[in-house]
Amino acid sequence: MFISIITVLPELLQSPFQHSILKRAADKGLLEVEIIPLRPYGIGVSKQIDDYQYGGGAGMVMMCEPLDKCITEAKQKRKYDEIIYLTPDGKTFNQKMANKLSLSGNLLLICGHYKGIDQRIRDLHVTMEISVGDFVLSGGELAAALLVDAIGRLIPGVLNDETSALTDSFQDDLLAPPVYTRPAIFHNLEVPEVLLSGHEKRIDEWRFEQSLEKTRLLRPDLLNDDL
Amino acid sequence: MFISIITVLPELLQSPFQHSILKRAADKGLLEVEIIPLRPYGIGVSKQIDDYQYGGGAGMVMMCEPLDKCITEAKQKRKYDEIIYLTPDGKTFNQKMANKLSLSGNLLLICGHYKGIDQRIRDLHVTMEISVGDFVLSGGELAAALLVDAIGRLIPGVLNDETSALTDSFQDDLLAPPVYTRPAIFHNLEVPEVLLSGHEKRIDEWRFEQSLEKTRLLRPDLLNDDL
Repeated sequence: MFISIITVLPELLQSPFQHSILKRAADKGLLEVEIIPLRPYGIGVSKQIDDYQYGGGAGMVMMCEPLDKCITEAKQKRKYDEIIYLTPDGKTFNQKMANKLSLSGNLLLICGHYKGIDQRIRDLHVTMEISVGDFVLSGGELAAALLVDAIGRLIPGVLNDETSALTDSFQDDLLAPPVYTRPAIFHNLEVPEVLLSGHEKRIDEWRFEQSLEKTRLLRPDLLNDDL
Repeated sequence: MFISIITVLPELLQSPFQHSILKRAADKGLLEVEIIPLRPYGIGVSKQIDDYQYGGGAGMVMMCEPLDKCITEAKQKRKYDEIIYLTPDGKTFNQKMANKLSLSGNLLLICGHYKGIDQRIRDLHVTMEISVGDFVLSGGELAAALLVDAIGRLIPGVLNDETSALTDSFQDDLLAPPVYTRPAIFHNLEVPEVLLSGHEKRIDEWRFEQSLEKTRLLRPDLLNDDL
């Protein structure tokens, strides 16, 4: 998979892609992430990329021209399956979207800043608008990093043990059950006996019950999704 | 505000806090972020921090002892308002939580990895469990960075123009209206006339209508929240 990210803060994205699973995915040739700095596409000697919004009000807006030039150039080099704008008013990102996007060939992500990007860039270029959650960030960079991480780990071969991703929270609309490791007793707290029993069937049942109970308690909305 | 982050991947968090608004917040002395590497608290010469999970199954679990030592030491140095574990089965993070947490003094964030941390650390130390969304990441680091960004920008004085954060998406349970900046015509696409009118009242009305329409269309759940 190939993911391009257009950003005014390329430095911010340096370390997330040089570590962890994303680094491993890159080393294995399974995922390449290209950071495209927007600034060189800015207007005039000051390389302007944002301006006051029409109609007044606080917060700057990212201008059409630099983004249009940058996106157009990227599209000429490569055919993108989706051109994604990260924005709080996009479709809320979830594991199903991550699964689907992990099957893509090329993705282009656009990171907004300040009040966001000029609506006309959304109208002209963007094919998918994604929000990572109901909160506002200072820019789209961390949202983009999050997206790449969530998608990247699902590309076959990235995780060492592929079954690991399949038993994660949300893959079956249930929260994951509690997990324990050695020692069996820590500060007087014991690991649930069933997990030490070696009884595979009982362990599976216990985990399913725990998942279900936890989901009912904390996230009943997940259980109602398919009704 | 002071935020400590316990992580096995301190390098991953380098660049996000050295740029953008978080850097500005740090420079102004409004927010200090301390990264605490977990590895030195590991067990034995190999500094082990994870182990196979009881009951079998794919994916490693972060052990009690290193985390307990690390958290205990942090708590001795400083009184934390909340000890937050970033986990997909936590309470879903949103702008209201960001607003509330932005009033904290000291926060301690714990980044999980693999299958997560031993349940007993959650029972012993964690006061709040937060999920940044219904998807799984390779670790809690990007979730922690996201949280710090969302909270950090709300600390009074961090954003240049404080009204800017108040007109963001979600602050009033509505998605933000479309924004435009110069030029007035781009690729034959015109800025809505009302925004060029200078008529403050009409502009406010238009923005509210756009917000409402967009929210109805894309996120009707936000409108039903208070019913």
